[in-house]
Amino acid sequence: MISLPLRQDWGDKALTSPNREQELLQRIRKLTHIGIMLSKERQLDRLLATIVEESRRFFFCEGGSLFTREGEELKFRIAQNDVLNQNITSENLKGKQISVSAKSIAGFVASSGEILNISDVYEIPEEAPYSFDPSFDTQNDYRTKSVLALPLKDHNDRVLGVLQLINPTRESNIVSFDFVKDDQDLVDSLASQAAIALTNAKLIDNMRDAHVDTIFRLSVAAEYKDEDTASHLERMSRYSAVLSRKMGFDDLFIDQIQLASPMHDVGKIGIPDAILMKPGKLTDKEFDIMRTHPQIGARILGGSSSPLLKMAEVIALSHHEKWNGMGYPNKLKGEEIPIEGRIVALADVFDALTSRRCYKPAWPLERALNLIKETREEHFDPAVVDAFFESLDQILEIKQRYADEAPKEVDDHETSIRG
Amino acid sequence: MISLPLRQDWGDKALTSPNREQELLQRIRKLTHIGIMLSKERQLDRLLATIVEESRRFFFCEGGSLFTREGEELKFRIAQNDVLNQNITSENLKGKQISVSAKSIAGFVASSGEILNISDVYEIPEEAPYSFDPSFDTQNDYRTKSVLALPLKDHNDRVLGVLQLINPTRESNIVSFDFVKDDQDLVDSLASQAAIALTNAKLIDNMRDAHVDTIFRLSVAAEYKDEDTASHLERMSRYSAVLSRKMGFDDLFIDQIQLASPMHDVGKIGIPDAILMKPGKLTDKEFDIMRTHPQIGARILGGSSSPLLKMAEVIALSHHEKWNGMGYPNKLKGEEIPIEGRIVALADVFDALTSRRCYKPAWPLERALNLIKETREEHFDPAVVDAFFESLDQILEIKQRYADEAPKEVDDHETSIRG
Repeated sequence: MISLPLRQDWGDKALTSPNREQELLQRIRKLTHIGIMLSKERQLDRLLATIVEESRRFFFCEGGSLFTREGEELKFRIAQNDVLNQNITSENLKGKQISVSAKSIAGFVASSGEILNISDVYEIPEEAPYSFDPSFDTQNDYRTKSVLALPLKDHNDRVLGVLQLINPTRESNIVSFDFVKDDQDLVDSLASQAAIALTNAKLIDNMRDAHVDTIFRLSVAAEYKDEDTASHLERMSRYSAVLSRKMGFDDLFIDQIQLASPMHDVGKIGIPDAILMKPGKLTDKEFDIMRTHPQIGARILGGSSSPLLKMAEVIALSHHEKWNGMGYPNKLKGEEIPIEGRIVALADVFDALTSRRCYKPAWPLERALNLIKETREEHFDPAVVDAFFESLDQILEIKQRYADEAPKEVDDHETSIRG
Repeated sequence: MISLPLRQDWGDKALTSPNREQELLQRIRKLTHIGIMLSKERQLDRLLATIVEESRRFFFCEGGSLFTREGEELKFRIAQNDVLNQNITSENLKGKQISVSAKSIAGFVASSGEILNISDVYEIPEEAPYSFDPSFDTQNDYRTKSVLALPLKDHNDRVLGVLQLINPTRESNIVSFDFVKDDQDLVDSLASQAAIALTNAKLIDNMRDAHVDTIFRLSVAAEYKDEDTASHLERMSRYSAVLSRKMGFDDLFIDQIQLASPMHDVGKIGIPDAILMKPGKLTDKEFDIMRTHPQIGARILGGSSSPLLKMAEVIALSHHEKWNGMGYPNKLKGEEIPIEGRIVALADVFDALTSRRCYKPAWPLERALNLIKETREEHFDPAVVDAFFESLDQILEIKQRYADEAPKEVDDHETSIRG
């Protein structure tokens, strides 16, 4: 819950100012501030919290909540309340959905596109086309009184969400939202700003999703004739992200390694079918050819101005290097190996060990963990190995969630990882 | 040039209003309006025009211009002026760059991060760290007098650009910008809003670039063993966009077909090397296998929730269908073939014909155009063929601009397009 210094610090002062000009100037500043806060926030969940927080601050409200429209459903996203002691995070209410057509306040606002200004939700007449659901009040021993429910509309007048503001206070008393009648411009402006920020954040979300989807499909395609599956890429990219977080990298790095790592084996596209799909053991000469895939991958991904593809190039080239200098293609040693490559190396090998391949069964977890422990400082960067064991819970959760469709853990077999 | 109804309609009225409250309320509305206009505009060039336009409107200025910072250079982007008769579009001044450290007004603002408020640019003292370049005035027979030059800073205080406002008017007289001293909040707010919108637009631009880059690299990779080159994909995707525009599709469709079409042959990844890379003619049986690539492609791209990948799936599956029903894999006929597939079919074949492949030289343009005319209504949608000939200039410009590195147009040879 975000707790604002609601009543004490500035709640009463501002609106009791006798000077209308000062008040207006202050409101310009606040509204501008809101606009800036909202347009700066591009991560959807944080944006939703900011919308509720800033709108409450603007109208001096005890509480507020926000629904976003997903098709014909309104999805509950966030609730804030300064008076309640218990935590009202979105976790508590998450997943709650109501139909746009439901006889609720938010449903009515979403379907009609109208603003609702209710001075006491317990006195809504029976015949009204909406009604108040008291379960939140009952559960939390709270008294919702006045509600201002605003539709957030995009520039095509489509309702993207509903913002509900609850119990505005003046001199420590809960008042009605009647004062907004003098400030219709401000209310409209607030709703527009929130809607635009929401549209932008969704656009960015969609662009990102499309990009991630493209990377996955084309990375999977590039390994069509190889063993690697979409779920291998899902897992190893998430392992890479978890290891990076544990090692203290920032959000940007974590985001990029998760997007870039699925492209690590794209160079296998250049390996002849006869070698890539050979059922038996490879000859030394065939192995030599197989081991050119990092350079082929780096060539395919190289020379881009995009930071993401630059990282993908580094990973493609370095993910088969070993800490002791016995890897390929450049026999780099220790910290000569780019950190992205060191992280992905472990993520990739752990997943290959614990997955079934045509030339080997899936290893039991214990055996894979032992191998990683044993080859610490030979194959892997000890710091990455440490991060791996420190985040084993998360790693295993990912392993489970993105399991292959028919997972088979066959016991032992003396095998080695190919490629 | 964007012409605002500057003096006549509302220029004087607003600011001579005796009622400070009304004036302030109007300014709140305007500033809010600006915030909304700016956050709605996500296309960079249009955004820059909107920033200048709305800022001029806000301060009642005859002219305005904007530079964006690219590394250590300031790139001239846009100029607007209501008084000058001739067109001052960015075309005239495009490409003009000045160094951030130059002794110019914009250069000084960019390097110092300070606002400059100059009441007469012709009276800047010699010893000032900046000077006015009168060449624009001389060329256009204009008199720049007062200038307000604002740094547009992101939330890390980095200067992203410089906005220059020129000659504010009051009651038809050019005045100085001294009045902004009372409105520092408004000026700051305007600059912040512009900077945030600029940051957002750049972010979206960068995301799009990264996505396009990824699609190209992975699409090229997927055809590593085939004949298709990056420049084939560049050309055919641009041809597809030109054809779509000529046929009246909207910007979203055009954008998507340009991004989705490079993935059309991704299914070739599933074709054995022995067929894909066979130097001689394919046997009937080999051709049958080759002709499964649309279904393989659709499987690779299928089932996504991304509109882009949905279109890519449709294109992969349908780009070898023919208007007369004799194509593959589904022998669709006429308008049964999705329009995206009909457009890409022509774009792909035209480029294949006019490019050299291992089994054929590049056809001379005339011969390719004749084949397209002849097979109108057999192979191609007549409407697409018409759009093709109507936009032939643009097509040929693309052909030239994205030519293969060693283009060879060898004369005739009886050949057919494989795949």
